[in-house]
Amino acid sequence: MSHDLAARFEGDLGVALGSNADHETIAETFQRRTYRGRAYFHLVDARHGIDRGTAIIGETIVPGFPSIPRTLVVDPGISNVFDDTIYIEEKLNGYNVRIARADGELFAFTRSGYICPFTTSLIRTEPFETFLADFPDLTICGELIGMNNPYTPHEYEEVDGVGIRVFDFRENGNGTPLDPTQRYERCANYDLPEVPRFGTVEPEEAAERVTTLIDDLNEHGREGVMLKSSTGETQLKYTTSATHQADLAHAFSQPFDYGREFLFSRVIREAFQAAERGESEVERRERARALGEAILFPTIDAVESVEAGELIGDEHEIRGDPTAIESLIAQLLSQGLQLDIREDYYEDGERVVEFCKVARSSQDKIKHYLDGGLIDQ
Amino acid sequence: MSHDLAARFEGDLGVALGSNADHETIAETFQRRTYRGRAYFHLVDARHGIDRGTAIIGETIVPGFPSIPRTLVVDPGISNVFDDTIYIEEKLNGYNVRIARADGELFAFTRSGYICPFTTSLIRTEPFETFLADFPDLTICGELIGMNNPYTPHEYEEVDGVGIRVFDFRENGNGTPLDPTQRYERCANYDLPEVPRFGTVEPEEAAERVTTLIDDLNEHGREGVMLKSSTGETQLKYTTSATHQADLAHAFSQPFDYGREFLFSRVIREAFQAAERGESEVERRERARALGEAILFPTIDAVESVEAGELIGDEHEIRGDPTAIESLIAQLLSQGLQLDIREDYYEDGERVVEFCKVARSSQDKIKHYLDGGLIDQ
Repeated sequence: MSHDLAARFEGDLGVALGSNADHETIAETFQRRTYRGRAYFHLVDARHGIDRGTAIIGETIVPGFPSIPRTLVVDPGISNVFDDTIYIEEKLNGYNVRIARADGELFAFTRSGYICPFTTSLIRTEPFETFLADFPDLTICGELIGMNNPYTPHEYEEVDGVGIRVFDFRENGNGTPLDPTQRYERCANYDLPEVPRFGTVEPEEAAERVTTLIDDLNEHGREGVMLKSSTGETQLKYTTSATHQADLAHAFSQPFDYGREFLFSRVIREAFQAAERGESEVERRERARALGEAILFPTIDAVESVEAGELIGDEHEIRGDPTAIESLIAQLLSQGLQLDIREDYYEDGERVVEFCKVARSSQDKIKHYLDGGLIDQ
Repeated sequence: MSHDLAARFEGDLGVALGSNADHETIAETFQRRTYRGRAYFHLVDARHGIDRGTAIIGETIVPGFPSIPRTLVVDPGISNVFDDTIYIEEKLNGYNVRIARADGELFAFTRSGYICPFTTSLIRTEPFETFLADFPDLTICGELIGMNNPYTPHEYEEVDGVGIRVFDFRENGNGTPLDPTQRYERCANYDLPEVPRFGTVEPEEAAERVTTLIDDLNEHGREGVMLKSSTGETQLKYTTSATHQADLAHAFSQPFDYGREFLFSRVIREAFQAAERGESEVERRERARALGEAILFPTIDAVESVEAGELIGDEHEIRGDPTAIESLIAQLLSQGLQLDIREDYYEDGERVVEFCKVARSSQDKIKHYLDGGLIDQ
């Protein structure tokens, strides 16, 4: 199958992807998939210096979205990284998707480079069609947000059901981002929906500005900020306590499915944030109380749900084009997920499916321990 | 060095240790050490079906102390395991030591089978000497408790400084435990200090009884219970919320040194305990608050201490025979620990050392992140 890619793809993959590995070696690391009978290739994990999620469809190389570093302290975390004007944008809590054009058609890719039938069906419309017809060599990077989301449902008052917010344009192949100014201009010209922006700041004022912004975002239960250099190449993230605690609450609703790493990293983020802010005794107590509840309550709920014979897991309600919904369900099942379909009906020509992605490991382990299963620790 | 053991030790190690592996293979897995010029051998990790910490000194095979399973629910956790009278003893929060006799001398071993100079010096006295002279084929298993403890300092009002509490006698070689009744009798006859006992209970009443005991132990900040079958062969542990939270507070005072696994396992214990008890809303809030504070406050303290230029880690104050103290310090250093000696003086013929085992990983990582070091997550 890899030779299929090596043979199919014209030119040198190593050069095209900015990797030192040779054409054949790279071709072999890609997985072959089909989307409605059409072959494409993607990289499930970062390899040979190529980002995870890089995909090849037809002659188009869709760059993977890189992992963005995080700082635990705004000072000196931000000024260490940036030496020039910083563009501040909101980091939204949804699912990272990339949209690219191949042979005249648009495709939307998940973080690990699968074509998502649901998102693809959503974006085969204006303004995405016209934009990518005019700029076929760009990949649009955006966040899929809103409650009717098959991956990361999260309430945003500005979104009805589901929506996409653009936060990057990247050149196909090497993935070089367009600079923020150019992106803002093009988004405006084409009426592309963007992530909220908070203007610019100089490095020496950034810590104070970000602290104020984070206070406000935190109060509204929003995730955080992305900071970008004027070239768009350097990016840094910093997040709110509200999102750390929501992450924990979500993870602990399926305690044995989400990693121990997950728990630990959020605690560390909270501690550095509290320490840097020099919070009062009262503020710390409040943060600790919220942390404890975010961890313990969902875990107790999960134990009680399993005891009551319920299936636990992520609940989703999706609606859309019936064929797209059908393909999405098939794809989730083919990835080995266990789905508990709770509602499935048509409304206004759309298919609506409510389902639970069963958290199998949590389900099984909780049952095992409730039955008196022993632990060796 | 392993052949040294193979040659030195008479007889078949596999048979003596209850392992299927052959004499040479087993001999090779033991580490050779010396204690005051005298060679001994120990197993740092469980291998070939032999418990971690198994040690060989002279002709004596000191059995490793097995890992005792834990239940997350008292019902049906306890009745699943026991089908006959259960002996209930207190589980103390200290350090597991084993005391054995070889060539007429007593030696105390740490969990992983090092001879501990400090503990050895403590137990070369009555009633241990006489007991092991009368029963040279037994190993005494006990908990080293109290504040003047080089491993696990924890306050026990009944102990002045440091003390040992016996909870098992095991046959040298195969490690078969004596049954509790026989142990109680021998401890009484020789005046050996024992862990507190709570009598016996039948399996069908055990859950209720243990719940009541745990309530009381929890209120006094004590660790939990060990349940034992009438043969002593089957053992099970269950612990208090107070100890889970104290464990967390301790681990998070050195967040990057103690495992993520540690955090997760305590949260799980708390959740099952809260769910099984059917706690009220108020009780759950209180448990969550305490959990959040146990996690967050020490982590913030650690960040602030490093920021203030202090060394963080476990603090100990030990006192005893000057030679034993000297050997202990040398041994801790030889194990690669970084010690910050804070006080070192003589008092009433004893040497007193206050030191901190520096939590190097936490120290370094906190410093790195305070300096704005980035995380890729």
